[in-house]
Amino acid sequence: MRLGVAVLAAGQGTRMCSARPKVLHSLAGRPLLGHCLDAAQVIGAARICVVHGHGGEQVRAALAGYDCAWAEQAEQLGTGHAVMQALPALTDCDRILVLYGDVPLIDPRTLGRLVSAAADTELGLLTNRLDDPSGYGRIVRDADGRVQRIVEQRDADESERAIDEVNTGILIAERALLVDWLGRIDTANAQGEYYLTDVIGLAAADGVTVATASPSRSEEVAGVNDRVQLAVLERIYQRRLAEDLMRGGVTLADPARLDVRGRLQAGQDVFIDVNVVIEGDVELAEGVTIGPNCLLRDCAIGAGTEVLANCVIEGARVGAGARVGPFARLRPGAELADATHVGNFVEIKKATLGVGSKVNHLTYIGDAEVGRDVNVGAGTITCNYDGANKHLTRIGDGVFIGSNTALVAPVEVGAGATIGAGSVITMNAPPEQLTLARASQKTMAYWVRPRKQPKD
Amino acid sequence: MRLGVAVLAAGQGTRMCSARPKVLHSLAGRPLLGHCLDAAQVIGAARICVVHGHGGEQVRAALAGYDCAWAEQAEQLGTGHAVMQALPALTDCDRILVLYGDVPLIDPRTLGRLVSAAADTELGLLTNRLDDPSGYGRIVRDADGRVQRIVEQRDADESERAIDEVNTGILIAERALLVDWLGRIDTANAQGEYYLTDVIGLAAADGVTVATASPSRSEEVAGVNDRVQLAVLERIYQRRLAEDLMRGGVTLADPARLDVRGRLQAGQDVFIDVNVVIEGDVELAEGVTIGPNCLLRDCAIGAGTEVLANCVIEGARVGAGARVGPFARLRPGAELADATHVGNFVEIKKATLGVGSKVNHLTYIGDAEVGRDVNVGAGTITCNYDGANKHLTRIGDGVFIGSNTALVAPVEVGAGATIGAGSVITMNAPPEQLTLARASQKTMAYWVRPRKQPKD
Amino acid sequence: MRLGVAVLAAGQGTRMCSARPKVLHSLAGRPLLGHCLDAAQVIGAARICVVHGHGGEQVRAALAGYDCAWAEQAEQLGTGHAVMQALPALTDCDRILVLYGDVPLIDPRTLGRLVSAAADTELGLLTNRLDDPSGYGRIVRDADGRVQRIVEQRDADESERAIDEVNTGILIAERALLVDWLGRIDTANAQGEYYLTDVIGLAAADGVTVATASPSRSEEVAGVNDRVQLAVLERIYQRRLAEDLMRGGVTLADPARLDVRGRLQAGQDVFIDVNVVIEGDVELAEGVTIGPNCLLRDCAIGAGTEVLANCVIEGARVGAGARVGPFARLRPGAELADATHVGNFVEIKKATLGVGSKVNHLTYIGDAEVGRDVNVGAGTITCNYDGANKHLTRIGDGVFIGSNTALVAPVEVGAGATIGAGSVITMNAPPEQLTLARASQKTMAYWVRPRKQPKD
Repeated sequence: MRLGVAVLAAGQGTRMCSARPKVLHSLAGRPLLGHCLDAAQVIGAARICVVHGHGGEQVRAALAGYDCAWAEQAEQLGTGHAVMQALPALTDCDRILVLYGDVPLIDPRTLGRLVSAAADTELGLLTNRLDDPSGYGRIVRDADGRVQRIVEQRDADESERAIDEVNTGILIAERALLVDWLGRIDTANAQGEYYLTDVIGLAAADGVTVATASPSRSEEVAGVNDRVQLAVLERIYQRRLAEDLMRGGVTLADPARLDVRGRLQAGQDVFIDVNVVIEGDVELAEGVTIGPNCLLRDCAIGAGTEVLANCVIEGARVGAGARVGPFARLRPGAELADATHVGNFVEIKKATLGVGSKVNHLTYIGDAEVGRDVNVGAGTITCNYDGANKHLTRIGDGVFIGSNTALVAPVEVGAGATIGAGSVITMNAPPEQLTLARASQKTMAYWVRPRKQPKD
Repeated sequence: MRLGVAVLAAGQGTRMCSARPKVLHSLAGRPLLGHCLDAAQVIGAARICVVHGHGGEQVRAALAGYDCAWAEQAEQLGTGHAVMQALPALTDCDRILVLYGDVPLIDPRTLGRLVSAAADTELGLLTNRLDDPSGYGRIVRDADGRVQRIVEQRDADESERAIDEVNTGILIAERALLVDWLGRIDTANAQGEYYLTDVIGLAAADGVTVATASPSRSEEVAGVNDRVQLAVLERIYQRRLAEDLMRGGVTLADPARLDVRGRLQAGQDVFIDVNVVIEGDVELAEGVTIGPNCLLRDCAIGAGTEVLANCVIEGARVGAGARVGPFARLRPGAELADATHVGNFVEIKKATLGVGSKVNHLTYIGDAEVGRDVNVGAGTITCNYDGANKHLTRIGDGVFIGSNTALVAPVEVGAGATIGAGSVITMNAPPEQLTLARASQKTMAYWVRPRKQPKD
Repeated sequence: MRLGVAVLAAGQGTRMCSARPKVLHSLAGRPLLGHCLDAAQVIGAARICVVHGHGGEQVRAALAGYDCAWAEQAEQLGTGHAVMQALPALTDCDRILVLYGDVPLIDPRTLGRLVSAAADTELGLLTNRLDDPSGYGRIVRDADGRVQRIVEQRDADESERAIDEVNTGILIAERALLVDWLGRIDTANAQGEYYLTDVIGLAAADGVTVATASPSRSEEVAGVNDRVQLAVLERIYQRRLAEDLMRGGVTLADPARLDVRGRLQAGQDVFIDVNVVIEGDVELAEGVTIGPNCLLRDCAIGAGTEVLANCVIEGARVGAGARVGPFARLRPGAELADATHVGNFVEIKKATLGVGSKVNHLTYIGDAEVGRDVNVGAGTITCNYDGANKHLTRIGDGVFIGSNTALVAPVEVGAGATIGAGSVITMNAPPEQLTLARASQKTMAYWVRPRKQPKD
């Protein structure tokens, strides 16, 4: 069976009050539509066609990484019409699964169950049971439990309104039959649109058995129509992810206060304190501790390393047994070896730090190669930018940089050298020796302090 | 109709365990009483009189911005007695609405409904239906549904206890009749106090129809008696405000983790990450992004600007397309033009930054005028304070300030000038030229590093 | 009565997915087992014996501060067997209370009620009523309400399954009888283990009245089997603690966003903003304000002091009326007197600051004694480390340190001295005079700015 997936993503989403198409709003750092396409891929779609509406270029650009076809639904003539737009791109598929770009939490396992349920018939529908079904289309079954049709809320009589099984809109159908059924639906309804759901009644009337399956959880079939609903789904997603992490051996100080927007791989006995945000690809090796209020994006932290409170780490790699923060910022290209210490108000960018080196206070290291066992004093600045170009600073093993030093790149400090505090180093400093640049100290005996001037 | 509002605010609030009068405790950054006074103003009160008790000066001082009369209730003789204290200040009003200074979430629309409901009679009462009414005074109606009286929990028989409609204490009455009724209530009750609610029975006995209205939500009539209740109302307030923001086109990473204590105006497609606190008057133009853990107070941020994680911004204005943070602090008088960059561990105070200028690392700019396209190197300090007075630093367009520079104000760096790294600039630097103040670098060949001394 | 407590702590906790024994996982900063031992101490245990399993050294080391005996249960043969291991260490006790190392929230008052309830008989059992008792052992009572036995879920018939009173496992027994009963239980059950609960049936059969008591709240008897459950209990603990603080006169901006891992003593009208983490022993005097995103560990803050947003304070003492932050870091040994100001991007370590002194920006003060009314300019660094040893900096009263100054310790700045901006001070500076070390400023007229180099 070659499975084609039609993803309906043309809804305008006016209740989002946004310049962005609804399906491009993010949930856990990915567009809603991306979640849906991922699910389609996981279940092994041979081909995917996304039906977009207005703003299609924006949608296509944002999802350019996905291998899928695109179809435009120029006029919003209903879900049935939308599926019709997708079909030409899916002609080489046996079966068509219809998904929705604004229903992001659908679980591929649920889709798998739907596909299996429909294996022996021509049509399968995902239905859901709700405590309060009001507003939804109800699944009307006959005495033998066979699906007969879907009746919308406004058309339902009292006994039909009592039905708690509702339509989710997600269905799978034999392609050729779907084409036939879609050709027979019309717009003779309240909104004057082609309803995809009309297919159910047509199929049943044709004697086709409508197979059904259900999601494990209602949120899987919840759509996003405004940002309040988006926030609800975001929290559900984060909550599930947090529980998975905890079950896998990560301690979370508060599962309600972790946000993962991407992929977090965490080793055993990792501890993550409150209010941490994870973005992109993040790896935390065994025993890593992340303090409160940290933001980690696209980084890897080695085993047993402690990231203290209020750090921002992005595009960096940190070795094992290191200590970072509090108030440290590691920027792209920062590579800290094992047992390094980076302390408060320190920024490291595009620089390597050798094993055991320490940069503890108020320092900027950018475009630099720092050896092992180096001690960089407080207030050190690598002057890497001359206003036009970036230059490299090289600091050898075992160097001691005195506080408040400016290293004007390109410059090299030889292994074992010591730089006196307060120096501006513009030329290479030889190894093993003390180099400094410092004015002599003097005291002005008769100097008088300024006095407070009266305000005009 | 001239509407007078009596606000009862004399309760001691012993359960708050506070040196502050209860009505001065803050909800969303404003005193409880302020919320109540705001509601009174919104519904068009012609005159407001606040009845305070002990600590009245503190209350009056804190609410000095409101145009209202103040009356003291020296002894706590009950709500009826409290209203009597307010009446002399409201003699020019036709009707009196009674509100409570510790009931902060009352919705002006609810009050409007009460006023309208009572338009054709002399007395209106706000009542509420509760799933569990126990503890509250019940509204006893006759067979025709006319309010007869209020029966307190302890005096209620079984059938009365089953009544789920309860008294909120909020009422509106024709002034002259209210004076009459209040003159007739007594202290023959359990607490020996004048109960305002006795007015209801008197009015009904006089044949006055008691009109009723109800709040949309129970929290509107919830009072604050301790800090636990205060926290509950704070969260309800914040939740509603968050939902309003989302419905208006703002994405909140987590609506449960936004605190707005003041007025937030946010344009379309603003994104606010977790754990942001907003205080005072804050404007975020279209497309602004606020990173996690930021505190914004009394500031305006231009369209498309990104405020990265962990920033504190107060009393500042930032243009469009700018980037601030992470770890930036903008203090009062900071004015950043469009496309400016202010980076980590940078503090800006009372200073203007021209279009496209960058202050990226570990810098203090205070009392300064910085032109366009200026690059301020890491570790730059404007020495604006001589111990007695503050002085100005002027930096022209296109200047490049080398890292670790001290600019001793008053001082001016001419347009296009370059300042060498590590300089202390005490005199004006001419435009277009390189100025520096730097000692020559030397190496001490026979210097020996200090050795670890044994501890005594 | 000499009370002995047997604490069962041998469970392997495989669902924790951890290298650490389950009872060493932390709740509110203390091991689960520590909570249990604290409860045992509070109710006046004469002797405590902890039964550990594999990894016992780790457990003993982590709880070394407790005065208790340790017994190993080498093989996991059931709870009855575990208690048997403890008994030899408790021979001098009259009664044995059995607690569980993974049931951390047990309230000593509940245990007190159990002890009292059992005062006139030989056996007392803590039972709990649950809305959904399924899975738990039910308490079977006879027609007179006397406990007969405990029936496990799988062995219960329909009427027994309807019983909502369940076994918590916590019991107290007369020691000699407990020894006898434990000698009579066997492993003829589903898991082939010695069940402690079999004691109940034996006692009842012997005609012993089984007294019962119940916890005030179900969470008291909740065990931790995985990190999801651990997180649930952590939140319950924190919520209760937050409510206690609020009832005691502390305002919490959001009780769901405070974490106390240790002991917080807070005076009246303390305000704690969102997302604050408290660790160790923290004292906040009356009227202290803690801003959002602060981490406080083992520190004391004086009355009326404001700690602004995003501070990290550890091992420090701050006087009254001071202001700290935002973005300040106080490290162990920082002692700030009254009315001091420590501002953004400032680190203070092992240093005293006299009354009224200010360190407002981008500064590192380590190993220093700073007098009263000192103004330390932005970018000041005490160079306290020479690569081998730490040295002291002394700054007298009324000193003004210009910005960007390096003070190379050991060094002393006399009272009333002024240090010029940008100086490196290597020798003592005399009092009352201006001392500086500064190169002269010069301008290079024909210098040309670097140009952007083409990338190769």
